Amino acid sequence: MAQARLIEELIESLRALPGIGPKAAQRMAYQLLSSKKKEAERLGRTLLEAVDKVHRCPSCNNLTDSDLCQYCASPDRDDSLLCVVESVADMMVIEQSLSWSGRYFILMGRLSPLAGVGPSDISFNHLVQRVGDERVKEVVLATSFTPEGEATALAITEILQRYYPQLRISRIAKGVPAGAELEYTDVNTVAQAMLNRQIRENN
Amino acid sequence: MAQARLIEELIESLRALPGIGPKAAQRMAYQLLSSKKKEAERLGRTLLEAVDKVHRCPSCNNLTDSDLCQYCASPDRDDSLLCVVESVADMMVIEQSLSWSGRYFILMGRLSPLAGVGPSDISFNHLVQRVGDERVKEVVLATSFTPEGEATALAITEILQRYYPQLRISRIAKGVPAGAELEYTDVNTVAQAMLNRQIRENN
Repeated sequence: MAQARLIEELIESLRALPGIGPKAAQRMAYQLLSSKKKEAERLGRTLLEAVDKVHRCPSCNNLTDSDLCQYCASPDRDDSLLCVVESVADMMVIEQSLSWSGRYFILMGRLSPLAGVGPSDISFNHLVQRVGDERVKEVVLATSFTPEGEATALAITEILQRYYPQLRISRIAKGVPAGAELEYTDVNTVAQAMLNRQIRENN
Repeated sequence: MAQARLIEELIESLRALPGIGPKAAQRMAYQLLSSKKKEAERLGRTLLEAVDKVHRCPSCNNLTDSDLCQYCASPDRDDSLLCVVESVADMMVIEQSLSWSGRYFILMGRLSPLAGVGPSDISFNHLVQRVGDERVKEVVLATSFTPEGEATALAITEILQRYYPQLRISRIAKGVPAGAELEYTDVNTVAQAMLNRQIRENN
């Protein structure tokens, strides 16, 4: 026998959250309705307000509740530099690294022939248009180093080179992660780090 | 630089969910606002409706949106048998095991002197009253086999024996779990299973 309808419905709705299975959803529902009613109400209200007001930034695809997202609206960023990422989460990691002062463009996905995701499913046309409109001088490709991410970077390179032969196109560096010990790093990464070695200037 | 206010607020609200840290909350928020707006809206509405309508069953402390929960309201259950559990989740596991046809009583916690949880913080008085009112014949203690759960079971036994000397009080069996291999079972459990061995009847 199941629980009351409303509780079942809440458990079912919680399962829409990424990474939440039936057991976790049940535990969440009981806790929210037992000892966290205030938090549950706040979450409910915030969800409805966010769904209503948050939309894609028309310039870069970031999520925002203003006309333009704060990265596109900021006057302090360099319009000639554009960093292309797969997702909002990827963009946030680059922001947190404090290593980028240009603009962003979010593809909202990556090419994946197996999953039926082609160039028209992610924002290729929008990217080509934006690069032209804003006289971008360098596009940095910061897609993942997975097969799909690499294929996406390659496809963007080909398209942009065709439209804008003068454009500088770069790819973020692949190498041994900060803090990693060589002994425990996979050989592909080590090989790539060796090939991409940086020459130290003489003093 | 952080994200837009509403998105930050949603991430913060999602962290109230049990087991959700800052990274998971961020991932959830982006996904809900990117590709799962419909699910997010449904979750928001269900949360608000459930917070508004779900309450404790006055008879057993279960969560319900009716006057009495369905286990207390059902005419098919044996009033003389009462199973005492710590939480709604524990009650649901027993229900799913199809091993109980009596009523339930949910303590909403367990004794924990270290955390400052005493008999008055969990529903001891309510339990004593219910056992008397409904002429219960047997109380089955189904609290956990943790130190706190065992202490809770012991305290309930002492109180109920004082008030109702005729009442039968039992404890669910401790032993080797179904499907477990002895080799990998902890020795305390094996010792308990040996002490509590059941005599097989001769054919």
